[in-house]
Amino acid sequence: MAEKELYRNGPYADFFCQGVRRGDMLFIAGQVGVDAQGHIPDALSEQLTIAYQNISAVLEKFNASMDDIVDETMFVTDMADCMANVGPVFAAREAAYGKKPEVAQTLIGTTALVDPAMKIEIKVIAKLA
Amino acid sequence: MAEKELYRNGPYADFFCQGVRRGDMLFIAGQVGVDAQGHIPDALSEQLTIAYQNISAVLEKFNASMDDIVDETMFVTDMADCMANVGPVFAAREAAYGKKPEVAQTLIGTTALVDPAMKIEIKVIAKLA
Amino acid sequence: MAEKELYRNGPYADFFCQGVRRGDMLFIAGQVGVDAQGHIPDALSEQLTIAYQNISAVLEKFNASMDDIVDETMFVTDMADCMANVGPVFAAREAAYGKKPEVAQTLIGTTALVDPAMKIEIKVIAKLA
Repeated sequence: MAEKELYRNGPYADFFCQGVRRGDMLFIAGQVGVDAQGHIPDALSEQLTIAYQNISAVLEKFNASMDDIVDETMFVTDMADCMANVGPVFAAREAAYGKKPEVAQTLIGTTALVDPAMKIEIKVIAKLA
Repeated sequence: MAEKELYRNGPYADFFCQGVRRGDMLFIAGQVGVDAQGHIPDALSEQLTIAYQNISAVLEKFNASMDDIVDETMFVTDMADCMANVGPVFAAREAAYGKKPEVAQTLIGTTALVDPAMKIEIKVIAKLA
Repeated sequence: MAEKELYRNGPYADFFCQGVRRGDMLFIAGQVGVDAQGHIPDALSEQLTIAYQNISAVLEKFNASMDDIVDETMFVTDMADCMANVGPVFAAREAAYGKKPEVAQTLIGTTALVDPAMKIEIKVIAKLA
């Protein structure tokens, strides 16, 4: 049986892993728009950009890249705001992927994320082979 | 490494894929109750039927079928309405599968989907081998 | 092609499977804090404990264990309550895993689960090889 490879980091490292790989599947914890200094910008598109930077950093720990993402679920606290800014939001997302995203996507409204300042959480699954 | 096979379609084709296959895993974007003419019926059970038709259409592009679905997450905007109509809702779902669904399921309330007229979004994962 | 192995149980056995395995992937239906007698305790941490017992029971049907879980999504109806009780909640979770959980995690607020008394639903994916 393939061992699980774990990547723990951040203030919740005792509670969960940022990434877990077993065999060819890599599951990444939902990432949010908090930068390395703990700052959360106000704009949804800026939070999105940081969330993808966090995703990318986890992928790197497993020698993987954004190209390995196959599935993405976005949870947003304010869908009306998200759709009102869908231009900059999806432009920031395309910039994060570096091309038209080659992923399945699901976009869902949520009542709340773990911190009231958070507007978006992005959960991705990567397939490595 | 297995190449990713992508299926792009619809008004959001620049933003995400309706389906992404790598190896034996097929991830399908959350599907909603919008028919090919852009119409969204009012009843939850009718939206559900169309969402499954859209899922089935994506599966066909990968030479797969509803039988290959292993996991399903349903997001509904009005859980009380969903449970009040659970009979017709689950009958429509069984009709979509053509039998008792052979899938794991998770049913979750959401604040909003991308269009206020949408009442349900269905996200499935298929395993092809 | 690997056959799907299905585990059906409980009042919704006609509607979905508690677990579906195909090959090395095991998808488990979202589990809630309802015990075998249909009782739902009030406290979030108690519901969480029962939900994990239910998850563990499904894993056992597939000769798997909590160690095989790679991904976990928690949906909670009251994020503020969850975070206000994050100590006992995560202690109960660590007890369920028997160690620091070796899983990716995503924690999301939901408007509603299928029964108004439910405060948490936990959806996990296991990778068996």
